[in-house]
Amino acid sequence: MKPTLKFDDWDQPALPASSGNRFGNTNEPRTVARSGPIADADNAINTVGTNSSLPPVDAEQKRVVNGQTDINQLAPFKYPWAWSFFLNANRNHWTPLEISMAQDVHDYQHKLTPAERHVFENVLAYLTTSDILAMRNIGLAVMEKMSAPELQIYQARQVYEEALHTWTYQHCIETLGIDQREIYNRYRVVPEIHGKIALANRRLHGVLQSARPLTDRDALHEFAMAYLFFAAVFEGSWFYNGFSPVFALQRRGLMKGTAEQLQYIMRDEVLHCAFGIRVVRQLLDEENLTLDPQALRQMWDEAEAAETAYAGYILRDPILGYNAGLHIEQFRFVANRRARQLGLSEPFSGAENVLPWLDEQANLRKEKNFFETRVTEYQTGGALVWE
Amino acid sequence: MKPTLKFDDWDQPALPASSGNRFGNTNEPRTVARSGPIADADNAINTVGTNSSLPPVDAEQKRVVNGQTDINQLAPFKYPWAWSFFLNANRNHWTPLEISMAQDVHDYQHKLTPAERHVFENVLAYLTTSDILAMRNIGLAVMEKMSAPELQIYQARQVYEEALHTWTYQHCIETLGIDQREIYNRYRVVPEIHGKIALANRRLHGVLQSARPLTDRDALHEFAMAYLFFAAVFEGSWFYNGFSPVFALQRRGLMKGTAEQLQYIMRDEVLHCAFGIRVVRQLLDEENLTLDPQALRQMWDEAEAAETAYAGYILRDPILGYNAGLHIEQFRFVANRRARQLGLSEPFSGAENVLPWLDEQANLRKEKNFFETRVTEYQTGGALVWE
Ligand SMILES: [Fe+2]
Ligand SMILES: [Fe+2]
Ligand SMILES: [Fe+2]
Ligand SMILES: [Fe+2]
Repeated sequence: MKPTLKFDDWDQPALPASSGNRFGNTNEPRTVARSGPIADADNAINTVGTNSSLPPVDAEQKRVVNGQTDINQLAPFKYPWAWSFFLNANRNHWTPLEISMAQDVHDYQHKLTPAERHVFENVLAYLTTSDILAMRNIGLAVMEKMSAPELQIYQARQVYEEALHTWTYQHCIETLGIDQREIYNRYRVVPEIHGKIALANRRLHGVLQSARPLTDRDALHEFAMAYLFFAAVFEGSWFYNGFSPVFALQRRGLMKGTAEQLQYIMRDEVLHCAFGIRVVRQLLDEENLTLDPQALRQMWDEAEAAETAYAGYILRDPILGYNAGLHIEQFRFVANRRARQLGLSEPFSGAENVLPWLDEQANLRKEKNFFETRVTEYQTGGALVWE
Repeated sequence: MKPTLKFDDWDQPALPASSGNRFGNTNEPRTVARSGPIADADNAINTVGTNSSLPPVDAEQKRVVNGQTDINQLAPFKYPWAWSFFLNANRNHWTPLEISMAQDVHDYQHKLTPAERHVFENVLAYLTTSDILAMRNIGLAVMEKMSAPELQIYQARQVYEEALHTWTYQHCIETLGIDQREIYNRYRVVPEIHGKIALANRRLHGVLQSARPLTDRDALHEFAMAYLFFAAVFEGSWFYNGFSPVFALQRRGLMKGTAEQLQYIMRDEVLHCAFGIRVVRQLLDEENLTLDPQALRQMWDEAEAAETAYAGYILRDPILGYNAGLHIEQFRFVANRRARQLGLSEPFSGAENVLPWLDEQANLRKEKNFFETRVTEYQTGGALVWE
């Protein structure tokens, strides 16, 4: 049995040439409150609207957004890869209760230096807020726009996984005896944490508050950029790289329970990122849309600036084996990978892989102490196999 | 170890007296596209909005809807029961791959009479459409309105469970070799199936298309009625009762794999119904809102009419041990229970419990053939224990 998760270093071929112009369409905004697909409304509401000649869904007619096919009919699939993502995610099932936190309580109280506690607590504060925001982003801003049910189905799983991550942090916070009210509120008190959350919230709100349907090319571009930001930056770079300060402690034998929890979360996030990038590529292709290079450049620059400020705060004092410079350089290295996966040019050319062990963590490949942790081989198919 | 799910016969005390009048408020509609809580937008967007004196969330200030507390802060909890629902749901984890369908393939091809096949296929057609609609209802119409994160967290799990149910039907359809395109489209072709879906879609659309915020008393009443309809009728009565034609086959040794799948789904639906009713009661209490008796009467009458037409179609020929009369009477009996749980008077006074074995099915208490089915005792805490 082999792990189902591949190394997170997959690349994608370049995007197909596109003649799309995001300014080519100036449809009037719709007056309905929600612009997402809400099924075949006219037919579904009208009880005498059944017709024995209404044909089944034609898979070729399905679209990522703006589709007209009946959203209630799962098959036939147009996007079998989305269905595979869903099946794989279910194989990855785990809960935070499976991982022992006993040694972490001791480490947290007696072993961490003040600088290490500062890193640990602020990483946790950032992650708690990020994951509840991630849940709302997928559940409220993204899923409703999808007009193919197999895409919504994976996102339903993703919404849950984000909730599961929130549970994981809550479990760590409770177990370690951290002040809940203070830690959840910290992002509103520390500007360097707030900066990343605010950047994400701005993109989330842009999509939520827009009354324009996605047949409007500007709205479509804004949506694509927002989903891309969440998949490639928020989940694919910030989260991916965001666990590494705790992994640095783990590599020195500290906070190993928490770190193992984060490894499970990271495995989920790699799939979220991969799925999101896959959807955005499909969307650009179907809609003949090209992302504005300036908007992309701005996205990467804002992300880097926010990450730099964040790293400067959480790592104002370096810890053994980790510092702000490593953190930021690794962000740039991972961001380049996301750009390649999108078929785009690298935003931070020449960035180096300064934390080569980070990809290993995503694979859950590590020394295993079976007395400390219990692995549930829950499913057939090789999930949660330790090498 | 005991099953975590109690018999679904819990009753609730009457609602507190309420002076609310749903016509007492005529706020202007908001101009934003989405009326749900989208976090502390002003603060979250403004990166210089951090303030070291911003206090943590006060649990007492949390609200089901229209709350002003930061949606990003899970704890402190105001609704610990919602958090318990989430933890319990995670203990109930299962997947359709765990249940053997081998005997069902033989039963379906060789043992079912034409009348039994008609029942089986049309029940499946109804359920497939219903569950994908349930996913969209919670994910798109309900979850966004919640202004306390512990409520959103359980609903995130529920959104996933609805997707898991859709997977279950797809697994049964694939395994049994049923024509996917035809079965998913059937609800558009058969008016008696379409009638139930159309009724649900109308309530879903009413919430989705409303631009009015829930500070508008009419919008609030419409939302409460819609959520109530989904919890008490769609999930709590139609689904609860909707599996019984297949359980009638199971009791005669037929389609036991499919029936076991449906028992897992039913267990989830009992929790969805209980959670929804609990939220609606809390909402009415907090908002000082009284449901319009005429609107309630209309809801029950429409539900009964749609169910009667549906039963007349799927059971146009009775099968051994089951017929349309039993189905409809049991619907009325279960609807009465939901009304009591809401603290409301029974809509179908005198309805009898003509299928006393149905509650047993919800408890997964049945003869167990360990060669046919594999139960994964996945979690500590007694989930999935067979008695
Ligand atoms: Fe997450
Ligand atoms: Fe994620
Ligand atoms: Fe369901
Ligand atoms: Fe449900």
